[in-house]
Amino acid sequence: MRIDGRDYRTIWLDEDGRRVHVIDQTRLPHRFETLALESLDHAARAIRDMVVRGAPLIGVTGAYGLALAAARDAGDAAIEAASAQLLATRPTAVNLRWALDRVKALLLAAPSEVRPALAYAEAGRIAEEDVACCESIGDHGAAFIGAAAEKKPGRPVNILTHCNAGWLATVDWGTALAPIYKAARAGVPLHVWVDETRPRNQGASLTAFELSSEGVPHTVIADNAGGHLMQHGLVDLVIVGTDRTTRRGDVCNKIGTYLKALAAHDNGVPFYVALPGSTIDWRIEDGVAGIPIEERNAREVTHIAGLGPDGAVTEVRLTPAGSPARNWAFDVTPARYVSGLITERGVCPATEAGLSGLFPDFDRV
Amino acid sequence: MRIDGRDYRTIWLDEDGRRVHVIDQTRLPHRFETLALESLDHAARAIRDMVVRGAPLIGVTGAYGLALAAARDAGDAAIEAASAQLLATRPTAVNLRWALDRVKALLLAAPSEVRPALAYAEAGRIAEEDVACCESIGDHGAAFIGAAAEKKPGRPVNILTHCNAGWLATVDWGTALAPIYKAARAGVPLHVWVDETRPRNQGASLTAFELSSEGVPHTVIADNAGGHLMQHGLVDLVIVGTDRTTRRGDVCNKIGTYLKALAAHDNGVPFYVALPGSTIDWRIEDGVAGIPIEERNAREVTHIAGLGPDGAVTEVRLTPAGSPARNWAFDVTPARYVSGLITERGVCPATEAGLSGLFPDFDRV
Repeated sequence: MRIDGRDYRTIWLDEDGRRVHVIDQTRLPHRFETLALESLDHAARAIRDMVVRGAPLIGVTGAYGLALAAARDAGDAAIEAASAQLLATRPTAVNLRWALDRVKALLLAAPSEVRPALAYAEAGRIAEEDVACCESIGDHGAAFIGAAAEKKPGRPVNILTHCNAGWLATVDWGTALAPIYKAARAGVPLHVWVDETRPRNQGASLTAFELSSEGVPHTVIADNAGGHLMQHGLVDLVIVGTDRTTRRGDVCNKIGTYLKALAAHDNGVPFYVALPGSTIDWRIEDGVAGIPIEERNAREVTHIAGLGPDGAVTEVRLTPAGSPARNWAFDVTPARYVSGLITERGVCPATEAGLSGLFPDFDRV
Repeated sequence: MRIDGRDYRTIWLDEDGRRVHVIDQTRLPHRFETLALESLDHAARAIRDMVVRGAPLIGVTGAYGLALAAARDAGDAAIEAASAQLLATRPTAVNLRWALDRVKALLLAAPSEVRPALAYAEAGRIAEEDVACCESIGDHGAAFIGAAAEKKPGRPVNILTHCNAGWLATVDWGTALAPIYKAARAGVPLHVWVDETRPRNQGASLTAFELSSEGVPHTVIADNAGGHLMQHGLVDLVIVGTDRTTRRGDVCNKIGTYLKALAAHDNGVPFYVALPGSTIDWRIEDGVAGIPIEERNAREVTHIAGLGPDGAVTEVRLTPAGSPARNWAFDVTPARYVSGLITERGVCPATEAGLSGLFPDFDRV
């Protein structure tokens, strides 16, 4: 997608065919900087420190992390250790495990001398598949936006989104934002309410940055505001992403998503979740009971970084020194509050039958 | 209540009997500073800029603002103009109009030479009534916390609150926090989840500061986290305040309160609203349709102030320069999501019958 009129992806290979480049998302929206990952440790740190984030992009970065590891030591033990190290960086997103398992299985079945090349090729394939997958999600989801536009001719469709499930969370296009980009490029009049998404503000920073860069009309709001907007008819539909989807359609997304789903339900606003099939965890039925929720550093709640009056990115403390904080990164929205799941294979109800119907060939273990 | 072991109120009269002192709440939690209000304009600015905030404290400050005005010009026109100026500072809280009308009616019925003294006396009376009222709310509400404690002996009662309806929002004790202070002083083991309450962070700053100063165990969380906590049984009850309550029990409180009420309802967590009778607006039935919602400066969303690395309070920008923001300050929680209203006269259901039963003598116009 576009930044300052130039096309980017979130992750790409250097001309040397080895180093991996990513956009440093911790610096956005105030600085646009890229970072070269030259080792397994670099890749693991980039995921853990959220230089890259978003379930699909984490998966691709993990795959490239295995490739960087294999380039140094392609032995079985090294590959197992690298996979374990990468898997431990973020516990909630299921794509990471999915991508690591896929590359690891391929490597362990091959002679060690070809493993580095195989790993790079497979990571690149996962990246390309992600682009195609997101574009397909965009096409399927844009139909809903188009349908909403037909109900209010001449007026923009108001879409609320939470966190960043945009192209910065994937390799390109995004998941929840892909339908928005597709509809906007097709000329559908629309406007996006962007939840700022505390504590890391991925909405106010990344989603707002993406939409600004692409020229999509949008307004940043506090996470607290969505219910009020829905009560007053100012939201036509909600689209969010998911980091893990259970077999019966519960979705685990950025903390606070559940609250928006409740408000959408209370006000008759359709609540869609956009996802690649790779986020489905077929082992889990009940998301609230079954999905481990990452707890992150409390400092993300007590402190926040922004652009200071001197033009430097500055971190300030928000809370009194004596007040502890806690910081859960995700919550689970039960399937009963989800109007539909927008996948690369089409749209289905948030039910086991719906998901099985679209993904009959997917691994159920 | 206590700050550094010393007892304070939020507003008090100077020894000169004329100047009005307040705690500058825009500086908390990082700086404790007081401010002298010497004129009507000072008082109006203090309310508008949220140096003082919270419906009851705004009412008392408005009353003292009229006294400051009357001390300079006690004529009918001056008093009417002062009242209109003060009323225009914050549109949502009903206490302000209530307090201004009360003082104004008294003054206009008296000879102008006694009006200044009458105004100061009446403002002082409103302040004392507020203290007694809040203390009574505290006693009634503490019973619920005590009852919750009996259900889980030896473990603290977990209470979630949103924004600041503590003593800083009133003259003393608070509304939503009064039951917590009363229960804590009675030795009931409890712990408070403090919603940070974007965009102005009154929870992370004021409520956390209050609870710290009083030694009440608490944890600051992002506004997005409450639903997750409730899904996992980590909230025993919710207590919030209200800036305006309709005759049928809808409550208008800080933006985001509605989302917490929905989550409480979805998880079977009792959701109580603490209020003085003065917040009841008997003219309005349907809060969503009838209560005007203040929209504040978007800068409160795009920027935030905190303590910088150099120890100075610094404002940083959170959003990209090209992204607009909007900032509604309140939302309405329909009565059907309110488990009970805790008032100075006892607890009632959030219904017209409930409110009329407790306040049969209140003005219905």
